Amino acid sequence: MKIICSKENLLNGINIVQKAVSTKTTLPILEGILLNVDDKFKLTGNDLEIGIECFVEADIRNTGSIVINSKMFGDIVRRLPDSEVLIEVNEDNLVIVECENSHFEIKGINPSGYPSLPVVEKENILSLTQSDLKDMIRQTVFAVGSDENRPVLTGTLIEVKNNELVFVSIDGYRLALRKKLIDTDLSDFSVIVPGKILNEISKILQSTDEEVLVYNSNNQIVFDAKSWRIVSRLIEGKFLNYNSLLNKEFETKVIINNKEFQSSLERASLISMNDKNSPVKLFINNDKIVITSNAELGNVREEINCEMVGNSLEIGYNPTYLIDALKAIDDERSAIYFITTNAPCTFRPVIENSDAFAYLVQAVRI
Amino acid sequence: MKIICSKENLLNGINIVQKAVSTKTTLPILEGILLNVDDKFKLTGNDLEIGIECFVEADIRNTGSIVINSKMFGDIVRRLPDSEVLIEVNEDNLVIVECENSHFEIKGINPSGYPSLPVVEKENILSLTQSDLKDMIRQTVFAVGSDENRPVLTGTLIEVKNNELVFVSIDGYRLALRKKLIDTDLSDFSVIVPGKILNEISKILQSTDEEVLVYNSNNQIVFDAKSWRIVSRLIEGKFLNYNSLLNKEFETKVIINNKEFQSSLERASLISMNDKNSPVKLFINNDKIVITSNAELGNVREEINCEMVGNSLEIGYNPTYLIDALKAIDDERSAIYFITTNAPCTFRPVIENSDAFAYLVQAVRI
Repeated sequence: MKIICSKENLLNGINIVQKAVSTKTTLPILEGILLNVDDKFKLTGNDLEIGIECFVEADIRNTGSIVINSKMFGDIVRRLPDSEVLIEVNEDNLVIVECENSHFEIKGINPSGYPSLPVVEKENILSLTQSDLKDMIRQTVFAVGSDENRPVLTGTLIEVKNNELVFVSIDGYRLALRKKLIDTDLSDFSVIVPGKILNEISKILQSTDEEVLVYNSNNQIVFDAKSWRIVSRLIEGKFLNYNSLLNKEFETKVIINNKEFQSSLERASLISMNDKNSPVKLFINNDKIVITSNAELGNVREEINCEMVGNSLEIGYNPTYLIDALKAIDDERSAIYFITTNAPCTFRPVIENSDAFAYLVQAVRI
Repeated sequence: MKIICSKENLLNGINIVQKAVSTKTTLPILEGILLNVDDKFKLTGNDLEIGIECFVEADIRNTGSIVINSKMFGDIVRRLPDSEVLIEVNEDNLVIVECENSHFEIKGINPSGYPSLPVVEKENILSLTQSDLKDMIRQTVFAVGSDENRPVLTGTLIEVKNNELVFVSIDGYRLALRKKLIDTDLSDFSVIVPGKILNEISKILQSTDEEVLVYNSNNQIVFDAKSWRIVSRLIEGKFLNYNSLLNKEFETKVIINNKEFQSSLERASLISMNDKNSPVKLFINNDKIVITSNAELGNVREEINCEMVGNSLEIGYNPTYLIDALKAIDDERSAIYFITTNAPCTFRPVIENSDAFAYLVQAVRI
């Protein structure tokens, strides 16, 4: 194979496929990137859980393919001058990388042992902007669980139902949900995508209106943009019935400024220093929320204003979970619904009847 | 004690004195910051190797002093809104920190056990701009040694001699020297300041023309700016006779573009991946330097142009040491003097007879 491409495009492609390259693997070939040239120049990374292909614009001189160590190849290209790069493979599988006055010869690996990406039929295609997909991931993926004994909770549910797209994560202590109306005649579907893979995908997605297609079959899901394609395994199993967890009854409802509440909680959680999960106490009364926390080294009292409906209430929370929810909400203000001191509270949009998002956080005993 | 000050000024002061606060110490009081109010509001950090005092502008209501845990105090103040902060200590040594709607009460420590900073007489004062001092540290401190069995090499020599200020570091494999003419009638002196302390000092110094005074006595050195004062211990012992290591004889001399040489060396050192000290070979001939490196995974050849005087030469180096020297030189180009393949090379200014800097790097066998 022999191609010439710009350093910038090549590096961009490497950065994308490296998200799928294992650093710890028992199969050394998976530490490499597959370079493939036929009518296009394509890079592939694949750790068997997630596979990424990326097309790089290039002047194609000869077809062929080779696998090259991902870390070394990335480090070298990153350091090359901003110029044209020639990549050529000779008969000994030696990869020649040339750019201005730099000349590298790197031992390549025979590509025949490189695992191919699973084939996924292009049916039932959901179309989204990269920006919308990136936001929905960011706003829900933080609440996936880490307990491998409950595998369905380590993923985010992606569901299409009645022309609505829903993302839901639940870790047993909290729930994060985003909904979006979609204009589609798509059949309903529901899949669970591993949280750690969604995290990698969100790093690749740009905050632009560029289209990304999503489709799934055979226990695989594909995220397909113009220049790259990500194939991920799905998590098998039945997700929790999240609707049963969400209801709009309340004894107390407050409307708060999100940034203000977040800053106060962040300060209140500092007093317990090394124990980030030490609870804070909220006392809701008289259009104010007083946040207090006590620890060995001292105590703190924070106060914010709110609009309040219903009874006054004293209730404890893990501040990190409240902060995570507040960070995920882009609105300036949100409504929080409380039932009793044993039940979770739920963050919702201020606009009545909007169910664009819901963040549920379990209370803790204080 | 009771004071009111701006969050910004307070945080700035905390950031400065925290450079002298131990995180690992057997004396818990040293994990704290001393707050002291008489006619001024002063913060102090002291790990017994380096002590820093910083004056913070404040509205003083009551005098007094207290020690407060540095990490917690810093984290809290960092998170406060940009507003006025009240600090008050009550009779139980409880420190009240108040800012807008935030109210903290933190257990303070009785300040009587806090070690005072060594007294250093204000004699023989050298005056520098913060910018010059910061540069001279940055350009020499990287070459101090880490071998605690050779303590003098773990520090930088600071010497005033014949109206010249000289900074020199030597680690056994390389030497870094900067000289600066000073207009002073100062007596000559020569001290060795621990490298790790100079690193902390350079973080506090700003790239401005503000004055910093330097004076020493009793095995202590002081760096005294308008709003802060740093006292550091000195390293006892006799520094190497660095002048004997520097001479301008050469068999080969080249003039190179520093950035170009640095980039080529950085790329050439990538091929050995995990072994950053694997040598590179320079072949100097015909107004070119060819840099090559061979490793298990491949090999590399880089070429740069140079102006050359003398014989052609093939010689090996640890690329990291060459790169460190090049990073420390602000000039666009520099001259490198080579003697034989066993002797060190020396980077100097292109201007003949200038001895503003010298970086000496020992060759390695190839």
